Amino acid sequence: MKRHDGHASVSRRAVLSALAAMPALPMILPAPAPAQPATPGGGLASWNEGPKKQAILDFVRATTDRSSASYVAPEDRIATFDQDGTLWVEQPMYTQVIYCFDRVPVLAEKRPELKRVEPFKTVLSGNHEAMARLSLRDLEKILFATLTGMSVDEFNAEAKKWLETARHHRWNRLYTELTYQPMQEVLQYLRGNGFKTYIVTGGGQDFVRVYAEKVYGIPPEQVVGTAGGTKYGYDKDGKPFLTKEPKLLLNDNNAGKPEGIHLMIGRRPYAAFGNSTGDRQMLEYTGAGNGARLKMLLLHDDAQREYAYGPAQGLPDSRVGTFTPALYDEAKKKGWTVISMKNDWKRIFAFE
Amino acid sequence: MKRHDGHASVSRRAVLSALAAMPALPMILPAPAPAQPATPGGGLASWNEGPKKQAILDFVRATTDRSSASYVAPEDRIATFDQDGTLWVEQPMYTQVIYCFDRVPVLAEKRPELKRVEPFKTVLSGNHEAMARLSLRDLEKILFATLTGMSVDEFNAEAKKWLETARHHRWNRLYTELTYQPMQEVLQYLRGNGFKTYIVTGGGQDFVRVYAEKVYGIPPEQVVGTAGGTKYGYDKDGKPFLTKEPKLLLNDNNAGKPEGIHLMIGRRPYAAFGNSTGDRQMLEYTGAGNGARLKMLLLHDDAQREYAYGPAQGLPDSRVGTFTPALYDEAKKKGWTVISMKNDWKRIFAFE
Repeated sequence: MKRHDGHASVSRRAVLSALAAMPALPMILPAPAPAQPATPGGGLASWNEGPKKQAILDFVRATTDRSSASYVAPEDRIATFDQDGTLWVEQPMYTQVIYCFDRVPVLAEKRPELKRVEPFKTVLSGNHEAMARLSLRDLEKILFATLTGMSVDEFNAEAKKWLETARHHRWNRLYTELTYQPMQEVLQYLRGNGFKTYIVTGGGQDFVRVYAEKVYGIPPEQVVGTAGGTKYGYDKDGKPFLTKEPKLLLNDNNAGKPEGIHLMIGRRPYAAFGNSTGDRQMLEYTGAGNGARLKMLLLHDDAQREYAYGPAQGLPDSRVGTFTPALYDEAKKKGWTVISMKNDWKRIFAFE
Repeated sequence: MKRHDGHASVSRRAVLSALAAMPALPMILPAPAPAQPATPGGGLASWNEGPKKQAILDFVRATTDRSSASYVAPEDRIATFDQDGTLWVEQPMYTQVIYCFDRVPVLAEKRPELKRVEPFKTVLSGNHEAMARLSLRDLEKILFATLTGMSVDEFNAEAKKWLETARHHRWNRLYTELTYQPMQEVLQYLRGNGFKTYIVTGGGQDFVRVYAEKVYGIPPEQVVGTAGGTKYGYDKDGKPFLTKEPKLLLNDNNAGKPEGIHLMIGRRPYAAFGNSTGDRQMLEYTGAGNGARLKMLLLHDDAQREYAYGPAQGLPDSRVGTFTPALYDEAKKKGWTVISMKNDWKRIFAFE
């Protein structure tokens, strides 16, 4: 139960076991996407021509053309993006959860009493089946223990170090390389048309801020996430610093997304992108505004190039945010645009 | 005790009584400021030449000149401003508190039981001495009752309407006209040099956001303030909306200012402006960063053109944020720049 030597491999095995638990999927290789020049207006080079790409182009034209009835003043152009599963890979586990699992052995070195206490004991055991069965409450304990109790600066340094070395098993790539190239193009295209792009994530606000500027060009102040309190204090030399407290201020999931948008942005978005039930209210809130509003959901239906889960597979809800069949039905009913990774994207990653 | 007809005058009398409680001050008219062209670099036309103006110009040069050792990348240029008493008049009472007092009669129409309950009974009585004696806890009850329990849209509409009509007794001007012209010039000057300007206020975030864009050119997402939670729900037609909840998420005063800055901005400011003990930690946090950091406190020492309170007058702490003698000493010790309204500003208001 004290296999510290293998804490990097703990997450890898957890990843593998979670992967193994997924249903077998047909392994048909997609035809290689033909090289194609960037669309003159959009620059959405990784998108196939069709109604999804056209919906983005039409929305931008409608909101930025001064002669349009749906014209939006530049200062009101807000676009919000879920992160996990919308901007980058969320399978088989949220990257931040892997980070937290990886921190447990480090934490147990400093606080040896944790080695005898659940759920830390399970994480340290390397028993992946047991880890996969951890309850949400247990996960919460792990998150609080590994994400709080240190200074903001210490946390930032640790997270940055981890992100520069930890790799996703399937691609043997840094997690920060596993962003979706077509979504990167949407971010750039919207920003090029005067939109402020925000991440609105159920993930930890501080964690995402560590890399969002470098990875997405999104500065810390445009990252809204699940956020805990901090406590202002002084070190022994009288220098002030902030400590991350185990106190939840904003659970930025489900209804927490529009609530977080109000708290942190104070305006209703004109465009919102998500991929799971956790994004439902954000899209709904966006859609309840006047004029042209873009509501898009990403469907993971490409097991070859990424993963396939959600309504196409009829998978049950899981710990990882899911695109349930009910959400799929609601999207169709409300006219939200569902993006098929398989059919609408020429390529998934920049490194392909 | 039910003088609803006079609810506009309630605040006026409260204002008057608070004014009356202030010590008599010599009424020497200042010499009219000579017209002077804008400084080539700064455009700080309402500032007298001298070390305070120079400190601002030097800071901007140090942080924006690429050859400077203190050069700051554009994305890191964050400047934070307290509002009440730093950007606009806070005497004899915070504008938002006057708004809340004015809302009590409206609220009592809808909820008549409040007419028999303290502290609402006192506010409705028009007894200004009794109102002036209300405790902080009583004030809190009034704030919660008048600022929560309605939808965000309703609140915004009510606050906007009030701000378009309510006037400050002394100048017979809208409150939104009572911003300090020299500070408006600092905001513009910093923005012109690539700084993102934020309001970081102990006042209500939602209240300030109603006018900050129009009055200061500061968009809602750059207003950090004392913030309550909201609750996502649906109206009878199934349309989603947010309700303001009586749940405090962030008390953006004192240590709450750096905590709020971390939550909402996620970066340490390079410049911070305040005028009271409530801003102490924000300036301290700003000053604890590397490189050139501008820390400025505004001293209200101009009874003719505005008000005089704080260390110059030896006034005791009061409900209104104060620049205590202790803060004055700390500023001198730490090298924070103290701006004298009387000596450093050619004019106070744009309408002068």
